[in-house]
Amino acid sequence: MSASPSGPGSSRARSWWGWGYADAQPDDAECAALGALLPGTAARPLPLPRVADLAIARPGVTPPPSLEHLVTADPHVRAGHAMGKAYRDVIRALRGRPGRIPDLVARPADDQEVADLLDWAGGHGVAVIPFGGGSSVVGGVEYRGDTHRAVLSLDLTSMNRVLEIDATSRSARIQAGALGPVLEEQLRPHGLTLRHFPQSFEFSTLGGWLATRAGGHYATLHTRIDDFVQSLRVVTPAGAGSSWRLPASGAGPSPDRLFLGSEGALGVITEAWMRLQERPRYKASASVAFADFQQALEAVRALARSDLHPANCRLLDPGEALLSGASSDGSSVLVLGFESATGPVDDHLVSALDMTGAYGGRGGTSSKADRGAQADAAVSAWRSAFLRMPYLRDGLARMGAVVETFETAATWDRIPALIEAVRTEVGAAASKATGNPARVSCRLTHVYPDGAAPYFTVAVAGRPGEEVGSWDDIKAAAGEVLHRHRATITHHHAVGRDHRPGYDLQRPEPFALALRAAKDALDPHHILNPGVLID
Amino acid sequence: MSASPSGPGSSRARSWWGWGYADAQPDDAECAALGALLPGTAARPLPLPRVADLAIARPGVTPPPSLEHLVTADPHVRAGHAMGKAYRDVIRALRGRPGRIPDLVARPADDQEVADLLDWAGGHGVAVIPFGGGSSVVGGVEYRGDTHRAVLSLDLTSMNRVLEIDATSRSARIQAGALGPVLEEQLRPHGLTLRHFPQSFEFSTLGGWLATRAGGHYATLHTRIDDFVQSLRVVTPAGAGSSWRLPASGAGPSPDRLFLGSEGALGVITEAWMRLQERPRYKASASVAFADFQQALEAVRALARSDLHPANCRLLDPGEALLSGASSDGSSVLVLGFESATGPVDDHLVSALDMTGAYGGRGGTSSKADRGAQADAAVSAWRSAFLRMPYLRDGLARMGAVVETFETAATWDRIPALIEAVRTEVGAAASKATGNPARVSCRLTHVYPDGAAPYFTVAVAGRPGEEVGSWDDIKAAAGEVLHRHRATITHHHAVGRDHRPGYDLQRPEPFALALRAAKDALDPHHILNPGVLID
Repeated sequence: MSASPSGPGSSRARSWWGWGYADAQPDDAECAALGALLPGTAARPLPLPRVADLAIARPGVTPPPSLEHLVTADPHVRAGHAMGKAYRDVIRALRGRPGRIPDLVARPADDQEVADLLDWAGGHGVAVIPFGGGSSVVGGVEYRGDTHRAVLSLDLTSMNRVLEIDATSRSARIQAGALGPVLEEQLRPHGLTLRHFPQSFEFSTLGGWLATRAGGHYATLHTRIDDFVQSLRVVTPAGAGSSWRLPASGAGPSPDRLFLGSEGALGVITEAWMRLQERPRYKASASVAFADFQQALEAVRALARSDLHPANCRLLDPGEALLSGASSDGSSVLVLGFESATGPVDDHLVSALDMTGAYGGRGGTSSKADRGAQADAAVSAWRSAFLRMPYLRDGLARMGAVVETFETAATWDRIPALIEAVRTEVGAAASKATGNPARVSCRLTHVYPDGAAPYFTVAVAGRPGEEVGSWDDIKAAAGEVLHRHRATITHHHAVGRDHRPGYDLQRPEPFALALRAAKDALDPHHILNPGVLID
Repeated sequence: MSASPSGPGSSRARSWWGWGYADAQPDDAECAALGALLPGTAARPLPLPRVADLAIARPGVTPPPSLEHLVTADPHVRAGHAMGKAYRDVIRALRGRPGRIPDLVARPADDQEVADLLDWAGGHGVAVIPFGGGSSVVGGVEYRGDTHRAVLSLDLTSMNRVLEIDATSRSARIQAGALGPVLEEQLRPHGLTLRHFPQSFEFSTLGGWLATRAGGHYATLHTRIDDFVQSLRVVTPAGAGSSWRLPASGAGPSPDRLFLGSEGALGVITEAWMRLQERPRYKASASVAFADFQQALEAVRALARSDLHPANCRLLDPGEALLSGASSDGSSVLVLGFESATGPVDDHLVSALDMTGAYGGRGGTSSKADRGAQADAAVSAWRSAFLRMPYLRDGLARMGAVVETFETAATWDRIPALIEAVRTEVGAAASKATGNPARVSCRLTHVYPDGAAPYFTVAVAGRPGEEVGSWDDIKAAAGEVLHRHRATITHHHAVGRDHRPGYDLQRPEPFALALRAAKDALDPHHILNPGVLID
């Protein structure tokens, strides 16, 4: 067993307990400043948790000599693979009660090693948790059961290469363990990009995006990683296989679509042929302010139904606009962006601003960002805040705040009442759970001709030591509102373990039967990510 | 048992053996004229086949009194449900040897009746073949086994209503048995359209489109019915269920995608919420001629990679251009169309013509068809020929020709060699099988940034009485070429029974295991469309 096989990109240390890089986390003074913005939080931050303080047991299982070189029992590595990066995970680490620490962490280098590890685990009752960047916010990479002899975290980040590029078909064969920046670095010399930029871009992998059907860069049209999949390679306990790389096929139900979103429960996605984009040469962006949020919703609905297809079309309600610095006067702000590798998009922006103007959209500070010029101030503020937000969440958590996001999608006919109900009811649940005034704000991250994906932020000062229970109460209230409005339990955060109750209610019974049967066939010993999606 | 429950749209008689309406079929004189174009065909057409000449056995099973009113054993109705409308089906009817005639035809009016029929069939070893418009060209609605006591054709065309319209979310709940014109008639008063116009539009149903993942109106962007599905309702022998209607969801693998393309083997799709379109107010179209087909391919590849998104982008090789009357000088012709409900598309057409011009595209007879004006002559010729083509195929079949189409899709890097290999090798196989000179022509029906869908037409004079065997030889050669080039066995015609050998080779093994398990779980008595997709 090696001491600690290092993963790629490990030159800058990742936090084992919180978001992102350890050196980017807010310091104590910044935490205190954040806490001052939320009434009722603590006077000083919780100390940084230390692996040395955790009671990490010796592994309950020993791998055979043939697999020893792939596996580590190093406590720091194991602690860093125990949970995802939800608020629920962060606060548990801060309170010294993280989830179950895996017995071992494996870093296979190819499909055969993945298959060998699955074989061994299947024969020894070892649960296997596929692990990419570990950025799950739904309990997707954590073992919560008690029926397995041991838990193996299967870290795929050593499989991180772009193996082949087909410039004629603008596509590439990429290993699933490549983190966002790692794969983009390899595509850049070819003038190509996958252009999939979830908020977790730096800390999540292609395989993670595929297994969770991640939401990407594009706010309209191709919003989801699914649309860029040409073919998948999957290793399951029952065997491995690849779909053919095809631009489209009508040969039976799509084989890829069964594994997209399967969250490691049906097999391990090891590589994919992905459709690429050319780098955009033309850009134009603007922000539009609305005094009335309902009017802003109507404007966005009109845009979503048009064929203008903005790449960015994010509507921030007054609370989100304030949080991100996009506005401070109680306006809602629409962040709009167009881009193209084909030709100028200024006309698109003008048409869009005409459209939003008809619904009372003000300003529309157009900024022709062709060939790299800066977008306007509100757009820039939004972008910086977007990437910094998870770090700030962890800073607030250290101040004893309960602060988290969740997201959903619904058809337009339900959107206004849904957003209002979430604001009111989840806010009330947060106040009830903590005894403190709560803030619930909303933005639309992706929009469709037939509906939208609202994304909510909840922030409230917690009761010291009761944060997990409080959050679980708040989340249950959120799930109840979503269910009542027939809004999906998740648009792009996946199901994991945290969304199971909502998912089970939402999933049609015939599909549940089929999924369970597929699970039994592909994972007969039920070792793959137990508790995720199905039991 | 009723004498003959009539289906909707039955005022104009459908041919029981051939394509479309009986009164639209070419008469003997037109058949002879068609035959004259293909050396080696017969001097006069085969006579029209008659149901009275078929030896139709009494049904091998009797339904219980509670289901009697849903079911007919009328010989004409049964004969009309025996097969799809492939050349293989037509020539078998013409030669008096149609496929197995179903024992009974049922026309349920609601989900409960579908469930009752499945219950009864499951308990009595009766195979159930879901039947929409019956336009399958891959043996999708025909029973070929011998392990069932009887065969029931489950005709869904009585379930043909638009049940609900949500104009805010631009979507509608539509019963699966609605034929194209039947559902469009109900949407038109609301200013909406599904805008799904496969070649079979008049003679195929929403449920058929969904179960076979039909290719639609749009040559780029949303090429397939799949993209317009908001939710599905499915009745299976193991129970019924509906997915939630959502613009998008990341909650596990898409439940709808398992049933899209399931070809009646996993359950019966009874209704769907579908995303609708506004009727386009702006159109522009043109045809572009190319002296060199390879250059035309490059031009289309450039267009497909752009963000111009033409609604129509069909490239006809010289043979197809001649067949459809779009050109007669050996040119390839690109039929281009843009449309929008948002704003004028003339600029799009100009940009597209600039692009095709760079690859030697000539003419580009632009025709601003805004607000209903006529498109140019080549475009019109192509449209008329497109709808008339299947009737002409049947006329040629009556003259003893072997004439049929097949289609595929592949990434751009393989397209030129693939098309050349199909032309050469399938042409050689057709000549070998028949002893006559063969014509193989090609068009691209749908194009993607990463590939294209070529569609081939084969025509050769057959050997009288040996047409089925000849076609099977030709089709086997085609399947072999497609497999060697890793081109899909079908882009939008589905798998049915005719494509099973190719499909079995193409389907990844883990998905095969999952699909078989899903089949066992949802259809435990294996009564649903036996032989389709899986055994």
